[in-house]
This record gives sequence, structure tokens and C-alpha cells, in this order.
Amino acid sequence: MDTRFSSAIHILIMIAGAETPMTSEQIAESVGTNASYIRKITGLLKKQGIIDSRQGISGFSLLVKPEELSLLRIYQTIAETEQVHVFDLHQNPNDECIVGRHIQPVLSDVFRGIEEKAEQELKKTTLADCMQIMKMRIGKE
Amino acid sequence: MDTRFSSAIHILIMIAGAETPMTSEQIAESVGTNASYIRKITGLLKKQGIIDSRQGISGFSLLVKPEELSLLRIYQTIAETEQVHVFDLHQNPNDECIVGRHIQPVLSDVFRGIEEKAEQELKKTTLADCMQIMKMRIGKE
Repeated sequence: MDTRFSSAIHILIMIAGAETPMTSEQIAESVGTNASYIRKITGLLKKQGIIDSRQGISGFSLLVKPEELSLLRIYQTIAETEQVHVFDLHQNPNDECIVGRHIQPVLSDVFRGIEEKAEQELKKTTLADCMQIMKMRIGKE
Repeated sequence: MDTRFSSAIHILIMIAGAETPMTSEQIAESVGTNASYIRKITGLLKKQGIIDSRQGISGFSLLVKPEELSLLRIYQTIAETEQVHVFDLHQNPNDECIVGRHIQPVLSDVFRGIEEKAEQELKKTTLADCMQIMKMRIGKE
């Protein structure tokens, strides 16, 4: 996973907090990237029913309440997979060695257990939680 | 983190299970890489007192009992950092936007909470656990 996940949370905070619908260009300026990168991410969010872009009105709106939108759902949408991936497996262990033959399924099992914990945490944390932390930080400015 | 972590666990299982000390070349053959890659990893493991290469005898030996060697310690050794890193932050948010200005510390906080859970899980899991799962899989062959 690259920085698309953190960019997606940034985008969703912008959309959730905007008083008028925001365009890809406006969002791109805040995220520090280009509008086409933003559109790739908003395309995925739209496909999963998280945001909408209304016909005739430029800009996006949130379809899910921030307190009901978990970071897990955002991650799954952006990664286009159900499972959170944390640790990579080496790909060419030697089948002729007994350790090499079994290492991938063994480490898959072990890593999956850890990734499931990360999934549970992401599920507990919502967009509203991120917005709340941001609000507190802004208040301290 | 690339596949060095999973390679390191593979290497340590080889060293722990070997009846005679194993050389980098022998280990590389099982991991499916070259001896110089193995030596980079064993260099870090040696520096942290996890393995030893004995003078006059080619090959490595384990200095820590497998049941006392947590995956967290292996990860920290290989990553050369205390903290498990899972999610990348986008690097150029716009300081002139209030969301852009606060997004990095906000997501750092949120991501750190999730990474701490992953750390706790890695701490609970030992090399002996991995060897035990492997033993069970080998038994089913």
C-alpha cells in the first residue's frame, strides 16, 4: 500500500467538511498532488457508494455518515481487496528444502493473524474520529 | 518493509533447526536468493546478538532460545528501527489549507495506534511458534 490510503482519508475529510461541494482540482491543491490522481481515488470511493458526484453540480458529497465510515472500509476500497496487507513474503524459496517448501504457508498464517488485528483496529476507527482529532489540533493552533 | 523480514525468519528457522552450522551459501539456496543478500541480514542479526558466527567454524548459531525470540525483535533488527511501520503518509499536503496543515500529525497518531497493535502481536509471536506451525505442516506432508 502506497500513500493512496492516507490521501483518501485526506480527501474524505475535505469532502465531509466542505460547506460547498469541492472539485478534484480544489482537493488536489490541499493534498499536494494533481487532479487526475484525486480522480483515481474518488472513482474508487464513488464505485463503493462512499461519495457521490452530482450531475450538473461540480464536486463531491459524502454518502456515508463520518461516524459510520470506518478506516477499514476506506482501506478496502482503495486497496480493492478485503484483506489488509502488512508484510511481504519472499517469493522464491526452494521447494527442494523442507523449510523452503513450507515457509510461505507458515508465514502467511502468522502474518494473517497480525493483519487481522490491524483490520480490527481500522474497523474501530472512523472518519469522524480523524475529524475529531483534527478539530482538536486546529483548536490548539 | 520489503521481504527482508520474511527472509530473516526463514534464515533463523534454518539456523535453529540445523544439526551442523549452516553457511550463507547453504541458507541462500533454501531462501532462493544469493549469499550476499543473506549476509546483509545475518550481519544485522549478529549485531543485535541474535546469532553468532563462530571463529574457525563456518556457519551461524542461534544465541537466543527460539521461544524467547519474538518476531518483534526480528522485525526491529531487520528494519533497524523500534517502530513497526505499516501505513505511508502522503508527503506534500498544502500548508496553506487547514486540513493540509494538520493531516500528517492526525494520521500519524491514528496509524501509530494501529501499528502499536501490530507490534503487540509481533511481540507475542516467537520463532518457536513459527517452527511449531512448520512442524505441523511437515507432519501432514
